[in-house]
Amino acid sequence: MSSAPTPRTRIRRIAELANYERATLHAIVDAAYLCHISFFDGESSHCIPTACWRDGDFLYIHGSNGGRLMRQLVADRDVSVAITHLDGLVLARSAFNHSMNYRSAVVYGRFEPVTDLAAKHALMDAFMHKIAPGREDEARRGNAKEFAATTILRISLDEAAAKIRTGGVEDDEADLALPVWAGVLPLAQVRQAPLADAANTVPAPAYVQRWAL
Amino acid sequence: MSSAPTPRTRIRRIAELANYERATLHAIVDAAYLCHISFFDGESSHCIPTACWRDGDFLYIHGSNGGRLMRQLVADRDVSVAITHLDGLVLARSAFNHSMNYRSAVVYGRFEPVTDLAAKHALMDAFMHKIAPGREDEARRGNAKEFAATTILRISLDEAAAKIRTGGVEDDEADLALPVWAGVLPLAQVRQAPLADAANTVPAPAYVQRWAL
Repeated sequence: MSSAPTPRTRIRRIAELANYERATLHAIVDAAYLCHISFFDGESSHCIPTACWRDGDFLYIHGSNGGRLMRQLVADRDVSVAITHLDGLVLARSAFNHSMNYRSAVVYGRFEPVTDLAAKHALMDAFMHKIAPGREDEARRGNAKEFAATTILRISLDEAAAKIRTGGVEDDEADLALPVWAGVLPLAQVRQAPLADAANTVPAPAYVQRWAL
Repeated sequence: MSSAPTPRTRIRRIAELANYERATLHAIVDAAYLCHISFFDGESSHCIPTACWRDGDFLYIHGSNGGRLMRQLVADRDVSVAITHLDGLVLARSAFNHSMNYRSAVVYGRFEPVTDLAAKHALMDAFMHKIAPGREDEARRGNAKEFAATTILRISLDEAAAKIRTGGVEDDEADLALPVWAGVLPLAQVRQAPLADAANTVPAPAYVQRWAL
């Protein structure tokens, strides 16, 4: 399934890297714990990182009711949301043809608040499940006061585009004979050994034991 | 050395995590290959990822003269630039106290073009040096046509703030006795084994051999 690009999501630069397939977009979003949100408050543009998760065709964020980000976004601002994974540095024989491998998604639209309490509960469970599958049934769930203090917002993924660069070097023909090493220096977000709290009274659950394997 | 926060860079949420020291800001910027740039084009907000590097108290980006990002930013737009490193997921005993460890920087201001050709040459060398120290003397440098097609922009780091969360779980006193594992699941951007181009005629230089060590 794919969405037709809008004037805002049609990729202009290196357009052959654009990808409007829904599955590709979802994979990029699901690989991310963070997004960056752009909005204009009437005076300044802001670029704010925040945690995110996907459920169906919506991207979700949450925060304290009193936070500037939540207050601004509840004010029905047009936003752009970006998720970017850097996969490597591409070292060509010429400086000009150096590049990066990446997977990126940009979403346009407006956030809307989720007000139904049962929906909020299910969504925070889904967020916990993304972080640590099964933990939604272990950690103490939010109480009434905590949920009352928390805003959950969602934005449709309908107006979104993915852009991906993979693979190796693309040098100009005339540069191929130059005595310059060419190739890719890969980068990856990697899980490292868990750090248990000193006051723990229970053994590490499976999702902790498997975290860095 | 520190800069006094402005109304835009004064951190309001969890203000004790704010850090206005210049060295901290520089370290966060220097650890990044990418930033996200927010700007408003009069109709929509945009959030665009792009490569970046620092020289002194300026953050630099570059791109094709014809690219939308460069054209918009040359039009003297107020922007916000964010750099975010995610260092781990913080698993508290209550869902509400879950958090993330991160290092982030947000810059406000306007980009200005670097037009002096000698400065452009030196800056592209500095960018290459950041990617692979020494490679600026190996790869074919940009020729006149390539430099003419390339816009380099800089933004002052004067109006910027860093925000950092490190360390372990902060549970409510009443939750400490719950039989729930607590701790940190660390994440890191890691270098992986280089992938040499099949047509290489020269051995891997030291910065490639050492890349993933």
